[in-house]
Amino acid sequence: MASTKTKYVYFFGNGKAEGKADMKSTLGGKGANLAEMTNIGLPVPPGFTITTDCCNLYYANNKKWAPGLEQEVEANIKLLEKTTGKQFGSKTNPLLVSVRSGAKFSMPGMMDTVLNLGLNDNTVEALASATKNPRMAYDSYRRFINMFGDVVMGVAHEKFEEQLSEVKRKLKVKVDTELTVDALKNVVERYKALIHEEKGRSFPTDPREQLTMSINAVFESWNTPRAKTYRKLHDIPDNLGTAVNVQSMVFGNMGDDSGTGVAFTRNPATGVKEYYGECLINAQGEDVVAGIRTPLPIKSLEKTMPKAYKQLLQVYSTLEKHYKDMQDFEFTIEHGVLYMLQTRNGKRTAQAAVKIAVDMEKEGLIKKDEAVLRVDPNQLDKLLHKGIDVNAKLDVIAKGLPASPGAAVGKVVFSADDAFEWADKGEKVILVRNETSPEDIHGMAAAQGILTARGGMTSHAAVVARGMGKCCVAGAEKVVVDAKAKKFTVGQYTVVEGEVIALNGNTGEVILGEVSLVEPKLTGEFKILMGWADEVRALKVRTNADTPFDSKVARDFGAEGVGLCRTEHMFFEGDRIKAVREMILADDEPGRRRALFKLLPMQRGDFEGIFEVMKGLPVTIRLLDPPLHEFLPQEDKDVEDLAKEMSVSVQKLKAKVKSLHELNPMLGHRGCRLGITYPEITEMQARAIFEAAANLRKKGITVTPEVMVPLVGDVKEFTHQKAIIVRVAEAVMKEQNIKIDYSVGTMIEVPRAAVLADEIAKEAEFFSFGTNDLTQMTFGFSRDDVGKFIPEYIEKGVYEKDPFQVLDRKGVGKLVEWAVQKGRETRPTIKVGICGEHGGEPSSVEFCHMVGLNYVSCSPYRVPIARLAAAHAQLKYPRAKAASKAEKKK
Amino acid sequence: MASTKTKYVYFFGNGKAEGKADMKSTLGGKGANLAEMTNIGLPVPPGFTITTDCCNLYYANNKKWAPGLEQEVEANIKLLEKTTGKQFGSKTNPLLVSVRSGAKFSMPGMMDTVLNLGLNDNTVEALASATKNPRMAYDSYRRFINMFGDVVMGVAHEKFEEQLSEVKRKLKVKVDTELTVDALKNVVERYKALIHEEKGRSFPTDPREQLTMSINAVFESWNTPRAKTYRKLHDIPDNLGTAVNVQSMVFGNMGDDSGTGVAFTRNPATGVKEYYGECLINAQGEDVVAGIRTPLPIKSLEKTMPKAYKQLLQVYSTLEKHYKDMQDFEFTIEHGVLYMLQTRNGKRTAQAAVKIAVDMEKEGLIKKDEAVLRVDPNQLDKLLHKGIDVNAKLDVIAKGLPASPGAAVGKVVFSADDAFEWADKGEKVILVRNETSPEDIHGMAAAQGILTARGGMTSHAAVVARGMGKCCVAGAEKVVVDAKAKKFTVGQYTVVEGEVIALNGNTGEVILGEVSLVEPKLTGEFKILMGWADEVRALKVRTNADTPFDSKVARDFGAEGVGLCRTEHMFFEGDRIKAVREMILADDEPGRRRALFKLLPMQRGDFEGIFEVMKGLPVTIRLLDPPLHEFLPQEDKDVEDLAKEMSVSVQKLKAKVKSLHELNPMLGHRGCRLGITYPEITEMQARAIFEAAANLRKKGITVTPEVMVPLVGDVKEFTHQKAIIVRVAEAVMKEQNIKIDYSVGTMIEVPRAAVLADEIAKEAEFFSFGTNDLTQMTFGFSRDDVGKFIPEYIEKGVYEKDPFQVLDRKGVGKLVEWAVQKGRETRPTIKVGICGEHGGEPSSVEFCHMVGLNYVSCSPYRVPIARLAAAHAQLKYPRAKAASKAEKKK
Repeated sequence: MASTKTKYVYFFGNGKAEGKADMKSTLGGKGANLAEMTNIGLPVPPGFTITTDCCNLYYANNKKWAPGLEQEVEANIKLLEKTTGKQFGSKTNPLLVSVRSGAKFSMPGMMDTVLNLGLNDNTVEALASATKNPRMAYDSYRRFINMFGDVVMGVAHEKFEEQLSEVKRKLKVKVDTELTVDALKNVVERYKALIHEEKGRSFPTDPREQLTMSINAVFESWNTPRAKTYRKLHDIPDNLGTAVNVQSMVFGNMGDDSGTGVAFTRNPATGVKEYYGECLINAQGEDVVAGIRTPLPIKSLEKTMPKAYKQLLQVYSTLEKHYKDMQDFEFTIEHGVLYMLQTRNGKRTAQAAVKIAVDMEKEGLIKKDEAVLRVDPNQLDKLLHKGIDVNAKLDVIAKGLPASPGAAVGKVVFSADDAFEWADKGEKVILVRNETSPEDIHGMAAAQGILTARGGMTSHAAVVARGMGKCCVAGAEKVVVDAKAKKFTVGQYTVVEGEVIALNGNTGEVILGEVSLVEPKLTGEFKILMGWADEVRALKVRTNADTPFDSKVARDFGAEGVGLCRTEHMFFEGDRIKAVREMILADDEPGRRRALFKLLPMQRGDFEGIFEVMKGLPVTIRLLDPPLHEFLPQEDKDVEDLAKEMSVSVQKLKAKVKSLHELNPMLGHRGCRLGITYPEITEMQARAIFEAAANLRKKGITVTPEVMVPLVGDVKEFTHQKAIIVRVAEAVMKEQNIKIDYSVGTMIEVPRAAVLADEIAKEAEFFSFGTNDLTQMTFGFSRDDVGKFIPEYIEKGVYEKDPFQVLDRKGVGKLVEWAVQKGRETRPTIKVGICGEHGGEPSSVEFCHMVGLNYVSCSPYRVPIARLAAAHAQLKYPRAKAASKAEKKK
Repeated sequence: MASTKTKYVYFFGNGKAEGKADMKSTLGGKGANLAEMTNIGLPVPPGFTITTDCCNLYYANNKKWAPGLEQEVEANIKLLEKTTGKQFGSKTNPLLVSVRSGAKFSMPGMMDTVLNLGLNDNTVEALASATKNPRMAYDSYRRFINMFGDVVMGVAHEKFEEQLSEVKRKLKVKVDTELTVDALKNVVERYKALIHEEKGRSFPTDPREQLTMSINAVFESWNTPRAKTYRKLHDIPDNLGTAVNVQSMVFGNMGDDSGTGVAFTRNPATGVKEYYGECLINAQGEDVVAGIRTPLPIKSLEKTMPKAYKQLLQVYSTLEKHYKDMQDFEFTIEHGVLYMLQTRNGKRTAQAAVKIAVDMEKEGLIKKDEAVLRVDPNQLDKLLHKGIDVNAKLDVIAKGLPASPGAAVGKVVFSADDAFEWADKGEKVILVRNETSPEDIHGMAAAQGILTARGGMTSHAAVVARGMGKCCVAGAEKVVVDAKAKKFTVGQYTVVEGEVIALNGNTGEVILGEVSLVEPKLTGEFKILMGWADEVRALKVRTNADTPFDSKVARDFGAEGVGLCRTEHMFFEGDRIKAVREMILADDEPGRRRALFKLLPMQRGDFEGIFEVMKGLPVTIRLLDPPLHEFLPQEDKDVEDLAKEMSVSVQKLKAKVKSLHELNPMLGHRGCRLGITYPEITEMQARAIFEAAANLRKKGITVTPEVMVPLVGDVKEFTHQKAIIVRVAEAVMKEQNIKIDYSVGTMIEVPRAAVLADEIAKEAEFFSFGTNDLTQMTFGFSRDDVGKFIPEYIEKGVYEKDPFQVLDRKGVGKLVEWAVQKGRETRPTIKVGICGEHGGEPSSVEFCHMVGLNYVSCSPYRVPIARLAAAHAQLKYPRAKAASKAEKKK
């Protein structure tokens, strides 16, 4: 502190600033950009920024200013007075300032702005004469006292409102604007009295005292519960502190040659390069927000204030050239002179993001890599699905989880069969269920969208809907479904079969009545950008697809193979479920084999279809995974019907259902545990796979099946199943005299498998992380039940994000990392991918890239997201692309 | 191979042997002991042992003998002929030998013995004249051909039996002994013809060929599927190989001055030092096993063969002095001369094991440490519980898992209420359920024993029964319970309410009808031995106890504190469950608080009772763990009754039950997740704990409560709960003006907690591994459902042991090890224990010792087992006892 004194305050004004854009840590985002704009010659009202250090020192110093800060502030006030030619407290030309907080990262949870600081009984008169508008001056004064009293002194805004109302009542005046100067003076007096009464001290009239108190209030706002919670939720460290911006006021409400506005350098909705923005004449910022007067387009200024308009056009170009990104800026015009109050990168729609990124590359403003980084992969979802017309008036009656993106409108039905039948007749339907099960697949496929009352982001409904690219709102806990009575209720609403509702899968909203939808558009720019992303990325992107149709969709979206084909989904259709049930009810192995023999040609056909679509690309097929009880009905009535249909006694069927019942089916008799108990199932599935491959090879289509054993927890489970698969593969190849290039690998989804990955890699030729189940077991969360407490957990900050949506890097990720490392120790060429729902979530894709996976696999509609996310990951954390060569080589 | 030629064959005979006892790897157990006995001067018929290497080389050499082996065998035959004065194939004095396999570890799955090798048409005549007993000679001959044909040549034993039967039928003879010499000659011819027919080659008459083939048969027996499976199950490496013992025959069937017998150097049932054993006069080993004639006590030889008897007494003493352990030996007396055929450490009952160990220490044969090692901790279970009279005739109708040791007899009842009522009237009952739930506790407590049709070794029934020290047979899958009809069926048996059954909790047997039970006896020797164990061990042993009664039992068994007090078990009795249900049904926090306020004094009383019993020792109390639905009835009828009782609408109660329903309750809303959603529950429990501690402190009783937060997966969950606990603790201490020494720690039972143990240890003052849940989640096994496939897994060798019984060192253990290490990195003084069911299982206790835990905690009746197991662990893997000091200090 002796020799190199820390600088606490940074001045900006008159075309020169002490700070610059890259000093956000010290000056906060707002302060750094005010400095930057000043430096590049934009007209910024002068002012100064107190650094974030001062905030931290304030707390370290027992809420006192750091030694020397007071002197620096004083020196900067002096400089500001000199620059503006105005003085604090002057009765002729008073300096008025705004005080704003501004941290490194934007934090809406922090202090509101204090405007017009410097006003008191004397300066208000000076303002009145200078503006020749005493009403405006006193109105500004009473607003300032209100704002200061509320934000700085802690007197509730409502109490000021009460006083104002009382004056209005007494004067029988309805609107604020009807208040006379005298009335406003009365309000000012009442406000002062109110503050004294509430706080036991007077409203400070000394502008320096006003300023000191406001600066402290900004410091204090850093540690309000609201701000703390916000930081916790957004992973912002507590020790960053906030800066304080003190800036001389300009007034847009000085008359018709004044105004205020907000503008974007390009159209934030479409991305088109145009002068986009709005302004209000003779108004202050507040008025724009209040929305009482309708703003005019920027273009209108060309006539009314041609000089300012010209200035403005220059600003558009200067900002874009300088920041090389679309800017969202605020300005004020005072007596025809333009002032810049803020600039930042503008928020934009997905469509605009893509267009702007590609256009800017064409314009030479940015490079391809930068263009790729400009589009948030999460945004793409909206490009790929129908959306709700943004102008539509919505009657939102409930909210669930945004389980699968897009939007849907249709008539409500309450069973999969009804959905199927109605759709068959040409009706658009929304399937509403408490929760869905594999038996509902045909109804889900037939419906426009799915609404469930239970279940989370990875519930059956959510997973299947995402796979189908179909809108789904899940876990709308307030929706009470009465499927028997064919109705649901939410609070006072009752919706019966046939009534129309709409779902917004991006927000989780359930909407009553008809709503118009907007079709997605995939533009040329989209393809260009995705091409650039593909050039960059090191991760391969595959898809989770169970049908030729899904495979086709995914391949069109750029999938480089199937990472997960869930064979059980093939078991639910028509005749198949019958054969499956026959197998389950068989008393012995020969009986099971007879039933499996019926399934064989159907499965073979499924695989042929997928292999054909994916020709030349690898296809990973997972053996039967779910517990067998999922294939049997559970309700008494359904059991009776089935017994009749299958000609078995009700008693026998019930006994079977009972014997298959599990208390925790998620941890039950499923995955490879089934294949070990019933090796003939594995045998049939392996045969279907290899016969399908052989049939296609005969047609000249290359097929490289990767057979995947699910739920392995010990290498012995894997070797048991692998032996069967290899035996069948050899047999088929011999029978058909054909050589098929195949491999046998395993899911890593049980924590024990991750721990023992080195042992398992001795036998397994590939790993695919099933992060859905791995998350369930690592956390001890049932994804079907987690809706009961996860929202509260996130609210209370215990977990930042739902670990079923965003891969938990610290816990689950640690196991993944460990398994990759251990697996490669034993088998350096092992191919490692992920096929859990996380495979299409950008942050998780980044993690997969960082730990060196070869590929991610996700539902078809998320393939573009994964491709872009993988490119982002490579640009942020470059890694050798060698791993992807291993993928090619296999 | 050139200079130091490997020795393949070891000779023994005439008081000198080339091998010795510590050469088990080379000579197998049997061969090493034959050599040892020879060396210490015991009369062993001479012979030689072919090393285990030869077996391995046989396989390495494409099933050919190692070069040089043939020559060595020949040389040893020569030596044997010289030593015995008999020759192979001699028509006057033929050498006959036995051939036996013998691996390093005893392997019942291997080759049967071949006796009387060397007999052929010539030598049989010589034997007949030498023994003057042609019948015996031909009977031996036909037995030899049968044995050789079966064991060496692979002709099924049944086929020989058929031939024998035919001869008997033709001669109208009923018993073998009625066959004349001629008839036996006919049998011999038929046997030879049978072999030729079956194998296309003659029965070999050359004794050398017989020997070579027998040696090869022993080698082959090493790799039979039976032997391989046995090795897999018992963790015996495949590359050990078996030795072959060739030994000259002695005959106990040479007349009334001959005989054969089995003896123990002490009584294997009681441990008393006495001449224990039995013999048969004029008999061969086979006859003893066949059990046709009743053997005589050893003592009887004193009169009939005084010389041999004297020799025998000498053998007892020589063997014990030499082996320093109780021996189980086989002998044969030929014409009044004693020969030793085998010795090994004798199997013994638990009671005998304890007595022998302590007695031998007194006798100066062994040291204390050795005495401690002589008793298998697993055996103690039998000492601590009632047993079924070994002489009882049992009508076993079903078999389940031996879930809780001991035995019980009583009348069958099918509901907890009935159990309670019947017991109240003085009836002894067995509670039979499909599975039990916490609602059944009162009935379980009232019953003599519990039988369930479902659930595994750590099912609710099993865990609770072990805690109560009550016999339980769980998961008897063939028992079909019809609780409504008050009966159960097993195959053709139907057992109705009131019928008597017995359970054997050590074997899992379900027995029809009355059976007499034997009370456990804890002898003085037991206490001495446990004292020695306590001197040795480094691990502390605590108990899992939920009541003062359990705590008392455990403390009497030597528990050094409570490692797990499950507070939910206190919630099920009488008024409490009512208050709990009130809490669950409350619509808001104030309602919940009102109900909790009723529970507070009851909980406080519980803790006071436990603290009082455990005075001076630490008590770990786990906060509420199970999902709330466990406290509500599930059946419609019960819900209706409860609604009436609680004066709420059936609809409301049903809605609550439905809303609490979970698909996978094990992974649901439980553990600290409850405490986070309902902090008032944690608050009440903490208050009960600290008020109880304060009340006892006022009485001058020291209490050190350790408050344990269950199911933590993230440090934030823990800090959330810890904050409440600390706040309440401080409040109570202030209110009562008392200082209580307490700590707050967590279960490590979710895999994620193990992975993130370093973070959690920053806040947690102790860890307790909940290995039940940790095993469930690490394997992805539901312990309630695992009975469906775990037995098959163990049968198929996928897992060697049920991981819920024996801690899985590789997977779960890895996480435990990691967590201990990471936890100590952050907090070196952290106290670490285990409170899962594994805490009382010897192999798991050993593991806990090895990874450096401070203590294990187990159900009261397993405390002695854990103490002894901990001592064994320290003797086998000595570690600094420093860790236990940390335990004391804390």
